Amino acid sequence: MTSLKNDLILRTLRGEKTERTPVWMMRQAGRYLPEYRATRARAGSFLDLCKNAELACEVTLQPLERYPLDAAILFSDILTIPDAMGLGLYFTEGEGPKFERPVRTAANVDKLFVPDPNQELQYVMNAVSTIKQGLQGRVPLIGFSGSPWTLACYMVEGSGSKNFARIKKMMYDAPELMHRLLEIVSQSVISYLQAQIEAGVQIVMVFDTWGGNLTTADYQEFSLAYSQKIAQALQANNPETPRMLFTKAAGVWLAPMADAGYDGLGVDWTTDLKPARELTQDRVVLQGNLDPTALYASPETIRQKVRNVLADYGHGHKHIFNLGHGILPDINPEHVTAMIDEVHQSSPAYHK
Amino acid sequence: MTSLKNDLILRTLRGEKTERTPVWMMRQAGRYLPEYRATRARAGSFLDLCKNAELACEVTLQPLERYPLDAAILFSDILTIPDAMGLGLYFTEGEGPKFERPVRTAANVDKLFVPDPNQELQYVMNAVSTIKQGLQGRVPLIGFSGSPWTLACYMVEGSGSKNFARIKKMMYDAPELMHRLLEIVSQSVISYLQAQIEAGVQIVMVFDTWGGNLTTADYQEFSLAYSQKIAQALQANNPETPRMLFTKAAGVWLAPMADAGYDGLGVDWTTDLKPARELTQDRVVLQGNLDPTALYASPETIRQKVRNVLADYGHGHKHIFNLGHGILPDINPEHVTAMIDEVHQSSPAYHK
Repeated sequence: MTSLKNDLILRTLRGEKTERTPVWMMRQAGRYLPEYRATRARAGSFLDLCKNAELACEVTLQPLERYPLDAAILFSDILTIPDAMGLGLYFTEGEGPKFERPVRTAANVDKLFVPDPNQELQYVMNAVSTIKQGLQGRVPLIGFSGSPWTLACYMVEGSGSKNFARIKKMMYDAPELMHRLLEIVSQSVISYLQAQIEAGVQIVMVFDTWGGNLTTADYQEFSLAYSQKIAQALQANNPETPRMLFTKAAGVWLAPMADAGYDGLGVDWTTDLKPARELTQDRVVLQGNLDPTALYASPETIRQKVRNVLADYGHGHKHIFNLGHGILPDINPEHVTAMIDEVHQSSPAYHK
Repeated sequence: MTSLKNDLILRTLRGEKTERTPVWMMRQAGRYLPEYRATRARAGSFLDLCKNAELACEVTLQPLERYPLDAAILFSDILTIPDAMGLGLYFTEGEGPKFERPVRTAANVDKLFVPDPNQELQYVMNAVSTIKQGLQGRVPLIGFSGSPWTLACYMVEGSGSKNFARIKKMMYDAPELMHRLLEIVSQSVISYLQAQIEAGVQIVMVFDTWGGNLTTADYQEFSLAYSQKIAQALQANNPETPRMLFTKAAGVWLAPMADAGYDGLGVDWTTDLKPARELTQDRVVLQGNLDPTALYASPETIRQKVRNVLADYGHGHKHIFNLGHGILPDINPEHVTAMIDEVHQSSPAYHK
């Protein structure tokens, strides 16, 4: 195994003193890059790209060629698990992901099974191995999964949703059924992330895109409890691999999230890092949180906003710079250069 | 002038001791009611319905015929002001509101003017007068406006938006221009709400639908500062009329919102009323916050969730029961009956 040339983000997640703030971007391998769009065009569909290890490796490495990033993130889809369960994932242009066979009834839930990561999800593990070889130890590779709640939202609704009518009805009227569904999804996420670690990822991240749409009690019962279960299993079996959790729109819940077994928490741009740090008391690393739309602004404005984020976090070593959500597809790639350069220039002062 | 038969919500907003918790619903005159859909079909377009005082009155009164609600709310659109400024509001089926002439440049901003509420917006004042006659003093009438930030979002984007790229770019790169736009919109909102009060509304509410998409500093500078300016002007000229402010997804900002000159704050369902009350220290009335999707559940579950909201607020008189957002168009009207009945049954215990 090649030793790591840049382990800054790992040292940050272990709580060590560091020389500067590490930086990467959610969706950094994506449509804002012309070289990504070119590979995507060669691949065929988005799923074809995910399932082709060489091309998935190619797009994973593209942002590293352009920018001095401190991590790579596996190129894959958030919905690989329900697809592996046989729900029939497909994409329609401009409408986002959909499932041919959504999960609506107790009979549907009973038919679900924990996919074998080395069978149905083998293509993801192949991508991890290929990317690891391609990386040559330049930076750590982040693996990921959707959270059980977020996966369940897509599985029950059959697509993205504005109001989540179907899953909310199940949650409110049939909470035991909801829990059975979440339990099997959680077991699947655990075995999936463990397999990613065995294949070579050095950090795992759980994306809870839709948890922020719940009440506090429901967030704890139907989302955070399962994210915690995942963290506990990974902690028991893979204690060396740092874990991160990102729930969008979760500013009011950061304190309980800091006790859920994760080393790092993503923070979106609507919550300032200073109060987030007060709520979590340096028990966890905080990752974020430049407004993704700030990258529409001029490079000078972007640099000022980067300095604001760094100053808001303040002195300390438990900060990973990132956007508050994924980079948007119509961002000018040169604006990203300004953002990353400013993190490199201005963050060392906060590490003295 | 007819004296009010039910002034419970006014007494609540004045901070008086009351016998039970008042209840109404955002978008209570709306598509979930078959009688609304029938009137809407007779009116023609949605804007035709807003501009026809008799029909706007008819739909405003419809939910009061079905349910023992404690307030009526003016039936109108949130975008009447920019339409009156000549931007050309129109609706396309399934896509929401759009403007023919969005505001994108300094020259566009320079052409904006404060509409005369008794000229361009006379149809709204006619609707208020007609509704007041129709109400016969049964309950107070709530008037409303979009917040300056929310109106500016639609004016600059030209429609609803997922990422608000255009207005964020203006805000980040041309903050003085953004402030000039917000200033003229604020003056328009002040004169619009004052005219509604003169025409007979007894409470005014400012809806800040998109403020929750900002960072804390930007929320204070570009949204809350203007909502505060509106409150101050109304306080000076119409001190007897209570003011309410609702910013969606604003749980982390409730403390500064409580100092912005409003008597009541709307709270969405993702923030519990107990911490909301701790943050605001009974300085304001809190309005909310049943998850609108809870109305998809069975009447028994709905009643339990209503009791949870009441218990979460706890003992006290500064609570108005409402949904955490507008009622959804596919809710069963009989489920609303259960919700309101439960507020009537269970809230008196918290007022002893």
